[in-house]
Order: sequence, then C-alpha cells, then structure tokens
Amino acid sequence: MALFARVRAHQVFGADTDVGKTIFATGLALASAAAGERVAYLKPVSTGPAHEADASHLATFAPQVASTTLVQFSDPVSPHLAATQATGALPDEAQDAQIIHGVRQWLMQQHGTAIVETAGGVHSPAPSGLSQADLLRPLRLPTVLVGSSKLGGIGTTRAALESLRMRGYDIDAVLLFPSERYGNDVYLGRLLEEEHGIPVFALGGPSDGGWGAPPIRAPTTAEDVAAMRTYYAGLVAGRDGGGLGSVVRHLQKRHTDRLAELRTLGTRTYEQCWWPFTQHARYTPQDVMAIDSAHGDTFATYNATSQSLDATLDGSASWWTQCFGHAHPRLTQAAAYAAGRYGHVLFPGAANQPALDLAERLLGTQPLAFPAPGSWASRVFFSDDGSTAMEVALKMAIQSSARRYAPQAGSKATQQRIRPGRAAGSLGGRPEREWEVLGLQGSYHGDTIGAMDACEPSTYSDHVAWYRGRGYWLAPPALATRNGQVDIVAPPSEDWDFGTKPLGSFASMEEAYDVEKRLGTPLADEYRAAINATLERLVIVDCRRFGALVLEPLVMGAGGMVFVDPLFQRILIDVVRAREDLFAMQDAPLRDAVSPAADGRSPSEWRGLPVVFDEVFTGLFRLGYASATEVLGTTPDIACYAKILSGGLVPLSVTLASSSIFDTFRQTPEKVHALLHGHSYTAHPVGCAVANETLSLLDEMVRRKDWAPFQAQWGAAWSFWDRAFVERLSRLDGVASAMALGTVLKIELADAAGGYASTAAEGLLAALRSEHIHLRPLGNVVYVMCSLNTPQAILSQTQAALEAQLRS
Amino acid sequence: MALFARVRAHQVFGADTDVGKTIFATGLALASAAAGERVAYLKPVSTGPAHEADASHLATFAPQVASTTLVQFSDPVSPHLAATQATGALPDEAQDAQIIHGVRQWLMQQHGTAIVETAGGVHSPAPSGLSQADLLRPLRLPTVLVGSSKLGGIGTTRAALESLRMRGYDIDAVLLFPSERYGNDVYLGRLLEEEHGIPVFALGGPSDGGWGAPPIRAPTTAEDVAAMRTYYAGLVAGRDGGGLGSVVRHLQKRHTDRLAELRTLGTRTYEQCWWPFTQHARYTPQDVMAIDSAHGDTFATYNATSQSLDATLDGSASWWTQCFGHAHPRLTQAAAYAAGRYGHVLFPGAANQPALDLAERLLGTQPLAFPAPGSWASRVFFSDDGSTAMEVALKMAIQSSARRYAPQAGSKATQQRIRPGRAAGSLGGRPEREWEVLGLQGSYHGDTIGAMDACEPSTYSDHVAWYRGRGYWLAPPALATRNGQVDIVAPPSEDWDFGTKPLGSFASMEEAYDVEKRLGTPLADEYRAAINATLERLVIVDCRRFGALVLEPLVMGAGGMVFVDPLFQRILIDVVRAREDLFAMQDAPLRDAVSPAADGRSPSEWRGLPVVFDEVFTGLFRLGYASATEVLGTTPDIACYAKILSGGLVPLSVTLASSSIFDTFRQTPEKVHALLHGHSYTAHPVGCAVANETLSLLDEMVRRKDWAPFQAQWGAAWSFWDRAFVERLSRLDGVASAMALGTVLKIELADAAGGYASTAAEGLLAALRSEHIHLRPLGNVVYVMCSLNTPQAILSQTQAALEAQLRS
Repeated sequence: MALFARVRAHQVFGADTDVGKTIFATGLALASAAAGERVAYLKPVSTGPAHEADASHLATFAPQVASTTLVQFSDPVSPHLAATQATGALPDEAQDAQIIHGVRQWLMQQHGTAIVETAGGVHSPAPSGLSQADLLRPLRLPTVLVGSSKLGGIGTTRAALESLRMRGYDIDAVLLFPSERYGNDVYLGRLLEEEHGIPVFALGGPSDGGWGAPPIRAPTTAEDVAAMRTYYAGLVAGRDGGGLGSVVRHLQKRHTDRLAELRTLGTRTYEQCWWPFTQHARYTPQDVMAIDSAHGDTFATYNATSQSLDATLDGSASWWTQCFGHAHPRLTQAAAYAAGRYGHVLFPGAANQPALDLAERLLGTQPLAFPAPGSWASRVFFSDDGSTAMEVALKMAIQSSARRYAPQAGSKATQQRIRPGRAAGSLGGRPEREWEVLGLQGSYHGDTIGAMDACEPSTYSDHVAWYRGRGYWLAPPALATRNGQVDIVAPPSEDWDFGTKPLGSFASMEEAYDVEKRLGTPLADEYRAAINATLERLVIVDCRRFGALVLEPLVMGAGGMVFVDPLFQRILIDVVRAREDLFAMQDAPLRDAVSPAADGRSPSEWRGLPVVFDEVFTGLFRLGYASATEVLGTTPDIACYAKILSGGLVPLSVTLASSSIFDTFRQTPEKVHALLHGHSYTAHPVGCAVANETLSLLDEMVRRKDWAPFQAQWGAAWSFWDRAFVERLSRLDGVASAMALGTVLKIELADAAGGYASTAAEGLLAALRSEHIHLRPLGNVVYVMCSLNTPQAILSQTQAALEAQLRS
Repeated sequence: MALFARVRAHQVFGADTDVGKTIFATGLALASAAAGERVAYLKPVSTGPAHEADASHLATFAPQVASTTLVQFSDPVSPHLAATQATGALPDEAQDAQIIHGVRQWLMQQHGTAIVETAGGVHSPAPSGLSQADLLRPLRLPTVLVGSSKLGGIGTTRAALESLRMRGYDIDAVLLFPSERYGNDVYLGRLLEEEHGIPVFALGGPSDGGWGAPPIRAPTTAEDVAAMRTYYAGLVAGRDGGGLGSVVRHLQKRHTDRLAELRTLGTRTYEQCWWPFTQHARYTPQDVMAIDSAHGDTFATYNATSQSLDATLDGSASWWTQCFGHAHPRLTQAAAYAAGRYGHVLFPGAANQPALDLAERLLGTQPLAFPAPGSWASRVFFSDDGSTAMEVALKMAIQSSARRYAPQAGSKATQQRIRPGRAAGSLGGRPEREWEVLGLQGSYHGDTIGAMDACEPSTYSDHVAWYRGRGYWLAPPALATRNGQVDIVAPPSEDWDFGTKPLGSFASMEEAYDVEKRLGTPLADEYRAAINATLERLVIVDCRRFGALVLEPLVMGAGGMVFVDPLFQRILIDVVRAREDLFAMQDAPLRDAVSPAADGRSPSEWRGLPVVFDEVFTGLFRLGYASATEVLGTTPDIACYAKILSGGLVPLSVTLASSSIFDTFRQTPEKVHALLHGHSYTAHPVGCAVANETLSLLDEMVRRKDWAPFQAQWGAAWSFWDRAFVERLSRLDGVASAMALGTVLKIELADAAGGYASTAAEGLLAALRSEHIHLRPLGNVVYVMCSLNTPQAILSQTQAALEAQLRS
C-alpha cells in the first residue's frame, strides 16, 4: 500500500485501450501543475517504440512534469507478449515484484502529485502475464478510471469498474469524453454516483467540429502539436471552468479526506467498539493498529508520525485464519459468484451445490490431492465458528454416550436420572452427576458457554458466572526444543509421576512425530499404564461419568502453543476406546440396560467414548498436514474445522461425524431426538464457495511438485521455519524452548511466572512492532504464523528480526 | 431461473459491442441445427432498423431457425436511449418484468436448442436503464460469452466475465476469433481454464487473407451473402473438425451434466450432510428441496417430475435473514470490494473502516434516515450469529450484576460465594445459587449452551445434557386477532391469575401498539402489581438471584411467533428498573458491600437489572421498525442484532452495550476483568461492508417517499400483509388467530395439542409447497415472511393461495 501525506498519488486505469488514458493522465498532470503542485509521472510498463511512448507524449505537452518509464518494450502489443518476444520466455513472478518495488521506490521520492499511468485496460496482462489490476494491488493506489465514450462504453466502463472494485481499489473519479450520441457520461454519472458515490466527469477540449475528444491527427507534426496544445488548454480549463482543474480539486479533497479518515480510524474505533478478548483499560488511542487494507502477508497500517501507510507483517495470520494471504483474488471471485447466484439460502431440508461440494470434498467423495480430513466421517454439519462447531460436537458426543450408556428405554428411575438436572440435588441417594468430558490441561475450544465448559478452570473462567468446567483434564507431556534438542517434557500431574527429567529426546522432529514407530517403545507402555490407572480411579473410585474425549490434536493453540506429545494423545485415544467396559459401568449402580457387546460391531462404530478432534486451529495444513490423523495414525468420531477452512475470508465451520454418531440422532422419527441445533446462515453458499476455492488452492499447491515442503519431506514433520534457526533460538539465554511445525513458530521465553496472563513477552512484541511485525500476545510465549504461500524473503526477514531481538 | 431438460437454452453475451456476437450466435444456431436439433433464436431487445436487425441476419443465413424479437427500437443506440427517444420517457421497472416474462414464456415453448442473444455488451442498459446482466438474472440462463479478439480484448473479456460471474451466471464457454497478433485466445484459454475451468474456443472461418474473423463487406449484397455463407460453413465445421460443432457438443455435455448434478443434488445432500434442527428420519431423498440458485423472493428449485426448475417462494425469508431478496447485486459488490481490500483482518486492538462505519451507524454517530437502533448505546461488540451475540450479552449483563451486587471487594466469604460454583453444593449454610435470568415463557435465544440456558426448559432441551435453564420465566399476555378483532389473551400462569377472558380488545393494531397511551390504563396497573408481587416472591421468599432481564421484544419468534403485549413488556422493564432495592438485597444474608445509591447516577446507567433486548429476529424492519424501542418507548442496556443485519448474505452479529455496562469490564487494568470472548472472524470486513450496504439500502428505502409503508402510516404499527385479509383469516374455521406486523404474517391453526412439536400445519405446508410456496414448520403456527421489497403481486398471490387452502 502506498499512501503518504506529502504526495497525492493516483493510478490512471483505462476501461479499454484507446479511451484517452494518456490524454487524461497528461491533462491531470497539467492541471495539477497549474494548481501549483510539483508533478511527477510514471509509466511502469510501456510498449511500442520509445518515441511513441506516453512518456514522450508527456515530455512534449507537459515538459514541466518529470516523467519516468520503468520498463519499455518496443513491440506495441500487450506487455506479456512484448516481454515474451523480447526475451523469448515469460518473465517469472520475481519480475512482478521488481516492478512493484520500482513503483514503490519511485513514489517514496515524490512530493506533490504523482501520476501512475497503467498500460492498456484494467486486466491487460503485466509482463509476467498477471492481470495489471492484480499486479498493482499491493500498492492500492487511489484510482482514476478513464471511461469509454464509445458505443458499448457504458458496458466496458462498468465492467472495468467492477473488476477494480472487487480488487479493493477506491475509485476517486471516472473521466471520459462527453458523447451526445451515446450519452455514456450521463448514464454513468447517474449510476455511479447513486450506487457508489463515485463522481463522473465528462470532459474534453476544443476539437474537430466542437468540444470533446481530441482532434484527429493534423497533416504536419507542428500543426498536430499546436492543435493538441490548444486542446489541452481547453481540457484543463473547461468551457465553464469545470475542466480538469475541478477534477484536481476533487482529488485533492479526496486525498485530504482519506488522510483524515485514517487519522481518526483508530481513535473512533477505540471509543465506540468493544474489542474481543481485550482489556480496554490497557489501551490508549495511539496503540490502535489502524488497518487501511491488507494484501498477501501484510497489513497497510497507518503511521501517525510519518502520516503514511506502513506494510506491517500480519504475524498471527489474523488470529490464525490466513492461509493464502489477504485479499486473494480467487477467493474474492468465489465469494462474489456465490453471492450473485444465491445470496444465502436456508439449509434445513434443502440443498445447495457449494455446501454439497464442500461436504463431499471434506468426506473424500470428491477426492483431492491430499487425504480428505473426513475420510472416516459420513456427515458434515455446518455452523459459523470454531466455538459453535465445538458446541455441536459436544452435543453429538454426549448425547451418543447418554443413549448408549443410559438408554431411554430404561426404568422410570433411569429416565429420571438421565434427565438433565435443572437444579443441583441428589437422586437415588447419590449425587446427580454431569456427563463430563475427558480432556487435556491447557486446551481451548471457544468462548460460548458449552465450549468453555469443555475446558479446565482458569483465572479467566473465574469471571464467567455460568462457566462450570464439566470435565476432567489430564496433564499431557509435550515436545520442546531445548538447547538444540527435541525433548519430551512432562508437567507436574496429580494423576501420575513422570519425574522432572525429560521422558526422552529426539535427534529430529521426524523421529518425534513418527508415532507408529514409537508405539512399541517403553514410554508407550508407561503412558498406557498411567492412563488406564487414572481412568479406573476416575470412574470406579470417583464415580465420574464421561461422555466424550475431547482433544486439540498435536498443538494446543490458545493454551500456549503446547506441542503435545503425539504418542501420548494416540495412547490416550487407544485406551479410551479399549475401555468400553469402564465407561459402560459408569451408570452401573442404577443400570437397567445392557451395554452393547463390544464385538460384532462395525469398525466405524465409536467405542468407549466418542473421540472429538478440535482441528479448528490445527487442521488444513496449519501444521503441515491436512489433518492430525495423518500423524496420530488414528481417526476421531467427530472433528471440527474452521479458520483456514474458509480461506481466511468469512466465518464458516464444520463438524464432521461418523455414521454411528449420526445414527444416534435418527433412531426414532421424533423431532426431539434430532440434533436440535442450527444457525440462520448454516451452510451459507458464500462461505461454502470460498471454502471450496480454498480447498482447490490447497489441491493445486500439493499437486505442484515445486511446492517446497512437498519436495523436502512430504508426509513427515516439516516447517516453513528453518530448523537450524529454531535450534539456534532454543540455545539462547532468555529462551526456554522453541518449536516449529508447518506454518507455526513458537518461542517460549524463560519466565518463572509463565502462563497466559504473563506479560513477559510484551517488550519483545513492542520491539518487533517497531520493525513492522505485528504479533499477538500469548503469555510468555511468542508465536509467528505464516501463510502457505508466504515468500521466503518474508520468512527470512522475520527470522532475522526475531533472532536479533532475542539476542539483544 | 429457466432450465428445462427438453430445451438446451443459452444466452449469448458479448464482452463488448462489435466482437462478433451475432456471428457466433448464428453459427451456434447453424451448428446445433447441423447436429439435428430443433433450434430457435430470440433477441429480447433489438435496436436499429428492422432489416439490419440480428433476427433478419439470422433469417438470411439460418432460415431453418425460428427467430423472434421481443422489442424492436429503430434507433441503433443503447436500448435505454432508444426507448427514451421512442417514447419520450424512460420505461419503468414494469417493462423489465415484461421482458423477463416474455423471454420465459418463449423459452417454455421451445424444444431442442434455444439461443437468446443479448444486445451490446454485458452491462449495456436495458430499456429501463438496468444493466442487461441484472435484467436477465432472474432466468440465470447458461451463458456463452463472446470474447474480444481486438487489442485490449483480454481486458474487456476478463472484466465482462467477472461481471457476469459476480451475478451468479455459469459461463459454459468463451468464443472468440483467433488473433495471432494479440494472442488473446491463447492467454484467455490458459487463464480461464486454470482459474474457472471455462474452455475458450478460438474459432473462425475462411475470410479475407486466411481463416479468422468474418470477411469485410463485399461490393454487392449477393457477393456479400455468398461470402458469409462460405464463412459460416467454415465456422461451423472448423479447419480440423473443431469448429462450432465441437462447441455444440461441449454445450450439450454441459447441459446434460447440469441436469445430472441437479438430479443428484438433493440425494447426495441427504446422504452426506447433517441438517440443522432437522429430524432426518422424517425425510426421504425426494423431500429435499434442491436449490439451483435464488433471486429476489424466489428459489430456483429442481422439479424431478418435469426435470426443470421451478420458481419457489422463499416464504420463511431463508430463516428470517432476507430483507432485499436473494442475490442483490449491491450486496454482492459490497462483499467483493471488502474481500478485495482486506480479506479478513484481525480485530483485537485494531481498526478497519467497514467495522467502524457499521458501529457508528448502529450507534447513530453517522446518522441515517431512521432512528439508530443503538442511539442509547456506546459500544458495539461483534460476533458471528444471534446465539454468540446472546452469549456475549449474557456475559456482559450477569457480570455487571455480579460486580454491582456482590463486589469482589467484599469479604473472603463473599468472594467465595460469588465464585461460579464448579460443582453443586452449599455455601455458608445456604444452597449456592445461580445468577439467573428473568425472562418470558416461549422465548428463544439460540442453540449454544449459554443461550439455551437463558430459555425455559422444553421437550427439546430435555435432550441436551448440558442444558440447565438458569432463570425464571413469566407467562406474558399476547395479542391475537380472533374473529376479526385484536384481543389481549393471557396464558395460564403460576404467578398470577388474569382469568380466561381477553384482558382487552382493540379496534386496530395502531391502538394496541400505542404503548405510551396505554400506560395510563387500569391494565397497566394490573400488570405492574402482578409483576411486583412475583418479583418480591422470587427474591425474598424463594431467595433467587437474578443477573439480567432478557426479552425478545414485541414478537417471540421460534417460540411460535407470539405477539407479546408490548404494554406488558414495557411495564416489566419499568418495574425491574424501579426495584433496584429488591435486586440489591439478593445477596443480603451474606452482603458486606453497599449497593450504589439509586440517585446521583447518570440516567444512562443501568438500574435494577441490565435489560437485554434480543432483536436478532425482531430488529431492523423485520417488524416494520428499526428497533422495538420505538414501540416500547424505552431502551435496553444491551441489545443483539443479526439476521437482516448482514443483508441475508453472510453471518454477522453485534451486541450493543451502554457505557455503564462497558465500564464494568475496564474498572481495573487486569486482563481477567475484560470481556474474554472473541471469535476468529470478529468484525470481518466482508460482513461489515455488507451490513453497511444493507443499512444504506434501508436508508434509501426510508428516504423514498413512495415507499408504501412510509406513505401509509410511518411510525405506527403497519404490515406488508393486507389488514382485511388478516381479519378474514381470523374468522375462518380452523384458524385460532392471525396477526401481521411488518413483514411477518402469522396464522395460528386451531389445534388442541398446540406447541412447537405439533405437526398440525404439515398438511397445509405440503399443499402450499405444491403451489411453489416454501414455508418452514413451527408447530401449529404457519407464518410467512417477506422482504422489504417484495412486489405487491407476490404478496397478493401468496395471500390468495393461503386463503384458498385455509378455506378448503
């Protein structure tokens, strides 16, 4: 993004070729100069002989304007062809980056007015073949669109405008020659003002037969130049003083207004909005990150000191949602198509193609190049966010347990007992008991009450009156790179004593994540014995009643980016499934129904407890895998996806379920036995279409053999972050441990206090912020999360900045 | 939407004028005829002399094709100018509807192939001035786009394609003349195949100097015709057999595939998706409503019998979300712009313009033509749906009560007491008590556990293990039109005895909803006394502890469209606010902190209990008012909006809060005292931009003095449904009562069983379904909900269908 208070920059796009783009760009330069401004002009890419180039036209008619051309091709065709013909090969994406870099550098040197004239139409291909509108998007310059006054010009102008707007450009003005015959100016003037508040200026100068488009070419150059000079004078002044001079005044005002909006954006938000998960008392208006726009890995953030926009790295992937960067044009187009085809259509008892396609891709009915996350599942339930997806998962799981272990068909006493206890009390001489979840300490599943209740108590839930914490949470051993080596570290636990020394060490991440191989180790037996003993105590001695095993596989995110030992999670799942005898006896004292036999059942039927994977954060390549099932070597009965699912664009989540879970809810035709949960926008086509496009992009990424992780170590534990860098960090003073998997880099700072509430990392985050890297706090843990297409240069810069700060 | 198995229909759009649209349309007709199909051709709107018209071109070169022109203007300019010049005035929207009707009628008469050739480019204005792409959208015909092979044609073709796709059109093929010079065909071929799977066919015939674009005009007509005939033969056959004949085969396949997708859409969804709030055992695959697309008030639904698409009325406004109909192009464009500018950007500690604009419009900082729903509020908290908005509201309200009435600053005993009870038990010799909500029987606030807990127990919550029902719910008197008269009907209650006769009757809805006037009536005193007595019993005798008053104002939606007596709700709010003495003593036995004095406080500070309005369903003109505050004459302390908020397109919700609520959460700089709630996509720019555009459309609607409700009785109780019709219905046998307010029509069927579980209405709904009216079941209540721009014709047809069915 490029916006600086000291320079009023505009890019001039044409609705088509030959609509007068250079005339208007030259005229704008002249009018700006006439208004007393210093004016510079840039043609990033020019095709055709140099003496015919727009810059040379400008030199003739606006010699007071400094003009520059970045790239010049001699053949007057589209730049992508000119480039091919000049070099024999299509330039690669690096050349695009060079052009953008060149424009940005040029802009930074300007004062006053800067006019960037594009080549051809809105979508004319850049040298690399990329649409010019996409090429220039990182700068998001305020835009002047030159409309077409020809027959059909209404259509081409409007389509060009829509293409620009769907790439997030602000169009400050549409300029075109007046046309009495076709009235394009009148029609567009009314329409664009009404629908978008964009003013249309119909402008011309003295010309053949009147006032309008430029004169036709005169017999001699001298006459031609003279005629054009006269024309330009008229174009700038206008017949009634309303020529390009008035456009310049309008553009000056837009520039001023835009800066004023940016100046107040943070303060007004600070005063009127209520941020999620934020203590407002810790903020001042100056702390607010005012985001003008975003592209790829960066935000354009307002810098009050320089009164300009900075490119700030979105180092938390906008709360872990981004996977292909901000404002990806294919996701925008997918959203726009679905909006245009459906808007939203209700889902109960109905079907729409984007929802079905998404379901089939998640289940594997429509295969992709990577393992379907729900290959084991038979059903997809849609909701709006990770928290609602987990509420749905909990309802699915606990009701399945309740119907198997305390069936309605039981006695009156059983029926009463399994009724949700509306008020506390006792029943049958024993305390009424919750259907609890079995989970891990440090887990997080969302902020609605049901999702909160599936997490252990903390200082945060203390302040939520309705929080109950209905479960038991085990303390899981975790992986941590310490002094260059991957250790298994066990936290203190009331359930078992694994000692204080590391339970093991690995030479490589690959080894640590080779769960199948580790299943035969003594540690696996230790885990198995400890978990079995704990479960027996909980159910038999403590008389607790469990309805679900709930896990964030591999990494617990909000709980501090804890890299749980995958072997522990695998063994936990195996033990829970093996101990159906234990869970079936939970209601033994009052039981009157027999537990289903463990044999003779379909292998897809859930056993022991329904196993819920919360893959809201961990799934869909965040950790380098489509699903943690690939690492754990086992599948859940229910799993939740969100965040990356909808490409980091709009809210959407899914809860996948196996057939035996689904069947629980249609055992009878009674409506009350259905899963009575739903949100208005369930399976909204826009979200589903964006999710499908995201899966398509992931599919293409995996199919491309040049995708770095694929080449390096596909299927094994890998990371976008350099392994040697991670090991170096882990050896630094002040760093307790480090880890990296997939897109996630975690640095645990040495801090005795620890925990989420810690403010230990605040200094580091502030220092990085001044280097334009925005990270979110997470206690004494600092994490960085990239997208799946973050350029290597950004990764390297970020690593260097982190290492420098941590060493200092 | 127009799709019929027996007719392969295509509309031919041009990327620009003069790109060969008529040539390709004629060629397609010839190639289809050559493939043995019956072919018909339609030009909906034609400009220019009749003998130069495309239809006459077709008559010359494809005489075997039946060609029709619906509207012919003699002036060869854009239809909107031609129409103006022909009639002296712009045709109104009715003329658009006539054209669509004409095209649809024509299509229904066809077999084989039907080709509809549009005029000019994609956005060429229709006679009314509407973009042609928007005009034809209700039919959503499979589209062939003729691309431009000119210099700049890549840009115009791509922009045209994007404009078509963002209106939900499926583009089956792009046709254009080959061009070695510019290579548009090669570039577009690669790009469109890769990004959208759209094949590009570069086609031509023998022509001047080779094979390509049509020959230039020959000296005589005969020569000209002969040259063109030769050209067409080549265009159809192609040099290598790959001419338009191959395009026809591709289009035939797309037609077949499209029908196959539609045929299986319902079944595959039935087998792989899990519908919200639906008992799957009650469905067969044949029951599924397969929605191909939607526009305005209707779905295009697949009819397996006729193998075609029906226009089915979306009579539940897609679960109460629609307000300007499906696929409104302005909402699509707003979404696309925000997606292109931001994607999503995280919100905590940050700011983005769409979120701020939405906040300021809801709070009234940026005024609109109607009262700001949150004129009383100071803060906007964003989340994803009504249920999460209510979870946020409950956390806000209860925590505010807890901090006022049982402050942390108290003794150790107090602190222990106000800690959320993790397990049931007793404290200080008395049972630990919930912070409960005070609410109304029949209310509904969403399906997450916290939102469910704010509703009374029902047969549905019986089956949700973690449901607790933390509150007390009063039985509210309600309004019902019975035998042509609006009665106040009181349900039986344990709290008071209002008898079984109506508490009152009104000659008009206006009278019933004139709360201010009714405040002085004896009934107001009766309500006041009853509520006071009940509250005293609950707090003093039953020792219950309340943290919030939670209401769906005016109408309780999911609970059966109950039109609560607004006077009762007003008095309830007034009494709760007046009885701070009561709520302050809730913790008296263990109190050690003094309640804040009732005087000396800001009028904006909450009193008694925080009052929460759940306006998720009722707000933003669903009931004809921007907010129920306009009727009740009082404001809440917290309010929730969703559904209409985001224009019926994507999920978004807000919770508004007054400053005294907000301040509770920043009394200390401790993070744990903040409102610790957030979702990844909080304040996502796409949703906020769509919400802003929705508010703009509402604003324009209210400003238009011709808006029917505005003219009739702005500010008073009014309805889109005819009052006389409602009164007639209420007199029918089988109808217990009827009501209508704003967009909502409610019919309560006489059914002793009653309640949501009832299936009494199922027969009626099935009968209406066969008349292409889709309604959602709600026990013995049938309701219809329209948009704010539903045409009168649709309202009248729906009323007639309902009345006929109810009389039969």
